[in-house]
Parts: sequence; C-alpha cells; structure tokens
Amino acid sequence: MDETLFSRRGFFRNAGLVTATAGIALASSGMLNLTKDAEAKGGPTEKWPWPYEKLDPENTAELAYNEWYRVFCGAAVISSVFSQLREKVGEPYKSFPIDAYVFLEGGMAGWGTICGSNAGANIVSNMIIGPRIAGPECENGAQIGADAMQWYSETALPSYTPKEPRVKSAIIQTTSNSPLCHISVGKWMKKSGYAISSPERRDRCARVTASVAFHLVQDLNAWKDNTYKPKSTWKAVSNVGITAQQNCTECHGANIPTPPSAKK
Amino acid sequence: MDETLFSRRGFFRNAGLVTATAGIALASSGMLNLTKDAEAKGGPTEKWPWPYEKLDPENTAELAYNEWYRVFCGAAVISSVFSQLREKVGEPYKSFPIDAYVFLEGGMAGWGTICGSNAGANIVSNMIIGPRIAGPECENGAQIGADAMQWYSETALPSYTPKEPRVKSAIIQTTSNSPLCHISVGKWMKKSGYAISSPERRDRCARVTASVAFHLVQDLNAWKDNTYKPKSTWKAVSNVGITAQQNCTECHGANIPTPPSAKK
Repeated sequence: MDETLFSRRGFFRNAGLVTATAGIALASSGMLNLTKDAEAKGGPTEKWPWPYEKLDPENTAELAYNEWYRVFCGAAVISSVFSQLREKVGEPYKSFPIDAYVFLEGGMAGWGTICGSNAGANIVSNMIIGPRIAGPECENGAQIGADAMQWYSETALPSYTPKEPRVKSAIIQTTSNSPLCHISVGKWMKKSGYAISSPERRDRCARVTASVAFHLVQDLNAWKDNTYKPKSTWKAVSNVGITAQQNCTECHGANIPTPPSAKK
Repeated sequence: MDETLFSRRGFFRNAGLVTATAGIALASSGMLNLTKDAEAKGGPTEKWPWPYEKLDPENTAELAYNEWYRVFCGAAVISSVFSQLREKVGEPYKSFPIDAYVFLEGGMAGWGTICGSNAGANIVSNMIIGPRIAGPECENGAQIGADAMQWYSETALPSYTPKEPRVKSAIIQTTSNSPLCHISVGKWMKKSGYAISSPERRDRCARVTASVAFHLVQDLNAWKDNTYKPKSTWKAVSNVGITAQQNCTECHGANIPTPPSAKK
C-alpha cells in the first residue's frame, strides 16, 4: 500500500478530475508519471476501462449459481459476468482465462483465506474498470471490490435464492463480519449444523456466490450509468494503522495490539 | 470445494495418468465430463498448460522487487514472471492484463486478507498450468500455489536481498505462520517497530514479494523439467473438516471449535 498514491487518489476526487480527458491532459503534462509507466508496460488488454454493457442482476446470479457446480465460487462470479460480456462485447473478455480461477475455491486452494466470491468480484471490477495507477477514471475498480467485501461482511447470506435450487430445503442465513472463507463458512456450519461436505453447505456456497454476483452487477450497472457512489467506509491503514479487517476482537479478544506509529 | 473432485485428483495421481495423452483418452471415453465442459466454455486462452520457458530465479526476484514500487505485491509477482514470458513466448502472456492486479495490495484493497504475493503466485501457477478441472496434466497449478502459501508461512521472510536495495539498513526477518497480509505484516511490524507507512516496511514488503517470486520460479522450472514434487502437506478439509489455515490456536486460543461432522 502506497500512502502517497492513496492521497493522490483523494486529490483527484476532490478536484473532480474524473474523466478520461482530464487523465490524458495530466499525463501529457507529466503529472501522471504512474499512468505513463502503466502505458509503457501495458499489453493490448491494459487499456481501461474495458467496454461494459449493463447486465441483468438476476440472470447473472442464476449463471453464477449454476457455474458454482462447475468451477466453484471465484471462477463462478467471474464467469457469470464475463460469459455474458463475451457475447455482448467480445474482446477482451474472450481472451480472459476464466476457468483458471478455479483455485480460488475454499479461500484459495482450501486454505480458508479470502472467500473466492469476494476475490472473483474484485477481479471482475478491477479488470473492467482498471487499476488506480492507470488514472483517475479507473479508481472505482478497487472501490467496487472493497464495497463487495464490506457488503459481504455485513449481509445475512445467502441473500439470493435461485429459481431452481438443487437443494430444496431451506438454507439458513448467517452474517460473517469478515470477507474470509473460513469465518464465513465456519459461522454458517456452526449455526446450521451441516458438515463441509454436505449438499446443504455446498448449495449455501453456490447461493452466496450468486448473491455476490447479483450485488456486483448492481454496482457495475450504476458505474456504467455514472450513478455509482462508493459505499464502503473501511480504510484500514488510516483507521487502525495496519492492513486489516474490522472485527479486531474476534481474533484478538480484548488484547488488540497497537501497531507502531509513524513517529518512531 | 468439491470433495469428489479432490478424490478424483487422487485417483489420477495414483493411477499415474499424468500426461495430456491420457487426459484426452479419458475425455473421449466420456469419463472426464468436467474437462469437456471446460473445453466447451473455454476462450482462446483456456487451453492448458500455457507455453513456459524456464526463467532465472534471481532475475525474476529483481524484477519483482522493482515492480513492487510500481504495482505492489500481487501484480509485481505476476509482472516479474509474465513480462519475461511476453518476450520469450509472446501470447497468451501479452493478452494478460497484469496491471489490473494492483488491487491485491495490502491483502486486497488494504483489507489484510491473503498476502498479495501469495495471490499473485497462485495466479501465475494456475494461469500457466491450468485448473484441475481441465484434466490431470493441470493438477500442479493449484498445487504449486498451495506450496507457495505453505513456504511463505514457514519461512523467515524476506529471504531475498536485492542487489541494490532502496533501503540500505538491515531488514529483519519474521515467520508469519500464515499466508495472510495482516498477520505477516503485523508480526514484522511488532518485531521491527516500524510503522506501516515507513520506508522500511515498504521495502520489507518489496523484498517479500521478490522472495516469493524467486521461490515460485524454482517450482515452475522444476515442473517444466518434470522434476517437480508437491511439497505442501496441508489438506484442510480432510485434516480439520473445514477450509482453514494451520495455526488454529493463534485466533481461537485453546477453544478450537469442532466443525459439524458429515454424519449429522
């Protein structure tokens, strides 16, 4: 994390310089050295934003739900959006290797870290809108990804019920207070009593994946309409002095360490 | 996580069916329905493995170290490998949007989840070798990614010292026992006393990124030489009944919950 860059982003937002035209003007003035670096390194898919056409959230959620049973959480979110854009737009979506992201399953190869659906949402928003180093018109890629993680943490999930669920019994909802697979799945397993390998747990994760895809497309559609507003408020480095989630006490208990300050 | 698939992977390994030829034979026999699905969905970059040429680990680490200061941990690992393969091989590396992965910084947009260098290593190994659903010749993509996470967790990092470090003072090493950014950075900050925004912390993360890239390329080169052997032993779902890391007590203390069993 580069604090200078985060300040730079704030500068752009405050100055209202949010159009591609302004970005080009700044680049030509030499102010946007990072943008110029990015352009110098960039391949043919590294021109942002990628073309985007608005998608139906419900259709996307249905695709994500069914794709879970083929490629699991992370790749299912990516597939639910990019498979539609492959048809509506074509490149660069046709050249994006969706299926390679199966490894996001189980919080990355089963290690329980970031929930794959959150990783997939971040990949989608950042591929379409671009990275913050590519200029001010690209800052909402990471922002929509952060919004996805905060929404996931605060929402009773799964929030989406598929039209034809593979498991017919009710799937209870839990709120994770965390974007991590281990915590999200663990809280659901504890409340529901179902094992990791049960059909119910698997359908729960497929429905969570669908829920994340639904929410993600709502944000992308708003961004396309220029009505998107950042919702997540969590800025860990400035809030608590270290990269972190918000639920400090859940792991640390009452003894939350104080990170070294910048005044050392 | 689909347990059936993990069993299937075990079957392939036990049967020694690790060549592309065998995969094709099984696909044509109808046994590999998942592979056929993957092929039906696949775009032009979804034929695995991607062509790979062996890279020099030290050169790769130097690239990763310097790229950290442009695109940060996750994208720097990807760039250190793919920028070389863009030159040596060309496509599909030229079409892969490296810079979009800046968002992996700070454990994904600053949330402290998976360390970006681990996410980047998983992306590299899975893009090159492919996902497990694409057939038995692709199973080592996720395996090398898991190896990267276990190595990262168990190694005193940073293990690589760049030739011309930007911070000249000694950077102490710490062992994270976790693939997560928050825990890795937090333990280093606690032992070193440096703040998150200090030049020393930033150079520490650049060196960790270089260390991960060095180790990753060693594994990829061995895979290319057909001498790669899986090293990580952590299979969370079968070991502890939930997607998880190994360091249970670090968050749970003595009260480690028992997940619901499959016998419910």
